[in-house]
Amino acid sequence: MYTADYLEKFSRKAFEKMGCSPEDAATATKVFIAAELYGLPSHGLTRIKDYFQLWKANRINIRPNIRIVHESPSTAVVDGDGAIGMIAATRSMEIAIEKAKSAGTGWVATRGSNHYGLASYYTRMALEHDMIGISMTIANPLVAPTWSVTPMLGTNPIAVAVPAKNQPAFSADFATTAIARGKLAIMAKKGEKVPLGFVQDKDGVPSDNPDILKEGGSILPLGGPVESGGHKGYALSAIVDIFSAVLSGANFGPFCPPSLAYLPVLEEKVGEGTGHFFGAMRVDAFQEKEAFLEQMDLWIETFRNARPAKGRERVLIPGDLERETYERISKEGIHVIAPIQQEMKEIADQLGIEFEIRD
Amino acid sequence: MYTADYLEKFSRKAFEKMGCSPEDAATATKVFIAAELYGLPSHGLTRIKDYFQLWKANRINIRPNIRIVHESPSTAVVDGDGAIGMIAATRSMEIAIEKAKSAGTGWVATRGSNHYGLASYYTRMALEHDMIGISMTIANPLVAPTWSVTPMLGTNPIAVAVPAKNQPAFSADFATTAIARGKLAIMAKKGEKVPLGFVQDKDGVPSDNPDILKEGGSILPLGGPVESGGHKGYALSAIVDIFSAVLSGANFGPFCPPSLAYLPVLEEKVGEGTGHFFGAMRVDAFQEKEAFLEQMDLWIETFRNARPAKGRERVLIPGDLERETYERISKEGIHVIAPIQQEMKEIADQLGIEFEIRD
Repeated sequence: MYTADYLEKFSRKAFEKMGCSPEDAATATKVFIAAELYGLPSHGLTRIKDYFQLWKANRINIRPNIRIVHESPSTAVVDGDGAIGMIAATRSMEIAIEKAKSAGTGWVATRGSNHYGLASYYTRMALEHDMIGISMTIANPLVAPTWSVTPMLGTNPIAVAVPAKNQPAFSADFATTAIARGKLAIMAKKGEKVPLGFVQDKDGVPSDNPDILKEGGSILPLGGPVESGGHKGYALSAIVDIFSAVLSGANFGPFCPPSLAYLPVLEEKVGEGTGHFFGAMRVDAFQEKEAFLEQMDLWIETFRNARPAKGRERVLIPGDLERETYERISKEGIHVIAPIQQEMKEIADQLGIEFEIRD
Repeated sequence: MYTADYLEKFSRKAFEKMGCSPEDAATATKVFIAAELYGLPSHGLTRIKDYFQLWKANRINIRPNIRIVHESPSTAVVDGDGAIGMIAATRSMEIAIEKAKSAGTGWVATRGSNHYGLASYYTRMALEHDMIGISMTIANPLVAPTWSVTPMLGTNPIAVAVPAKNQPAFSADFATTAIARGKLAIMAKKGEKVPLGFVQDKDGVPSDNPDILKEGGSILPLGGPVESGGHKGYALSAIVDIFSAVLSGANFGPFCPPSLAYLPVLEEKVGEGTGHFFGAMRVDAFQEKEAFLEQMDLWIETFRNARPAKGRERVLIPGDLERETYERISKEGIHVIAPIQQEMKEIADQLGIEFEIRD
């Protein structure tokens, strides 16, 4: 078990050793640690290893010149200059928040970035400014459009956070796919079959094989097949792709650069790096601030008081489970599985810093 | 069969006879006729009857003072003053477009409105200004949050239109539910069963009964049960509800006013009327205009060239089917089924205008 503080110091040192400025190292670290605290280790420490390997392969820019390349009163396009995604994304969300202060809302499309990790990290940045936060990103193509077999879209998550007064904030963060890649990997390890409607084989025939992605298969968009609304998930994922990668001038859809160093760099490019999209809306650009926050409390209370289905104890507001996990892990400490401890130890050894293996 | 021109003249006269200004009558009519041309009669002429009945019940304001009640450089809250939804919505989208001209983007939350019909009608208004259009609305509660049995949310559609250069625009418009209410009605008429995962009974048990809504049942959000991502559809629908009804100060979720005159007025209210949310983003607030439009062409061509699944001939871009239908019906004329012709005839008789029953 580790404290957040221990892992934070390790991560900051590791990124500083790679050449990051202390500010950038701290910025990236905050996102990794938040993912661990929210109980999402797939976006936590293991991403430090991914970035370490991209850095060794000279595929990220450790001293990027992140800058606005186009803007209007409420918008900006940010060029991440090949930065670690968490750094380009944090800077972009800060710009969205600044724009919102003067224009009411701020919208930033980011290009030249890389995998940005936890989508909801950026939306939560807006909350302390009494703003609604919005964040979305493209990701490596695994999802086929409806009626197609070509993986063209990533898991393309959407996150939205809305502040309330006494109630904890509404915080939604979800992939626009029927199933997460990580869940397929777990099913494969357990020897389980995938329920029909989540993945298809290389010909577009429904499959129950959790390893089907390795055989030319693809994940279906949220909603599954067209009969249960999969075309809606396809549209939603396409919107994320257009906002994140066409508005910004990044590599859209199938051209999204691989976020893992063992995947080859794509030969064809149609823009710069990976793309994200961020929004910040001042609640008092719509309502008197207190009135809005009180109404959001009423909204949350109303939905929390919906009658639970048979066998369920309560109805959740998006963000409830993650917040409860955050509170628990913050108290108990962060459990890091042995293989990831080993990864961190190897990084530490190569960079000449300390990392302690623990039970 | 009718020409669009014939139905347009009839609709305008009908609304003028109810007391609408000629401008407002023309505005509402355009949305009804567009729905017919896009092959969506559930949002077409039959809504004239719904509004005629609401007017007779004195539940809409035929001479509304639609006005901005709060604003910032990129935002506005519009009070529809009880207007016909299509009139409040068109005015709101015009304001979003005006805001975008000066601020780069424009965002309007509308309250005191009613059922606004075809969501994509408003997003398409943005296209001619080289803007991306966004539109969403709440609707009468039929959908239960994940793990709940209380219908709290409407079909809450999201529409997004993105302009291109030589390719036809991208135009997505979808309800955030697993299945449309209209489809359930058709299944009931045909004596068909509903596949599991779309609706549940009053206890939250999965049901195959297309009439389950009449027995206290509810529709599941997009994604169906939690195992196939239904909690994502719930989050998405909740976001539509918060943007449309909390940001605007309308009646959110279960308090959405009934859009049909035979349903009683709700006793409890938490805001003013029905709420919508609109966005307009100037593409040149992000990229040089021509560069963006050409990149959108490339995006559309890339996705259209994805390999079709076995048994499918092509891969669709959102909006393709609706556009093809629009072109076909514009040529062939609008087929109005006998019961709706009868409805129009009755309205005509009561208002003292002409409507010709045809084969």
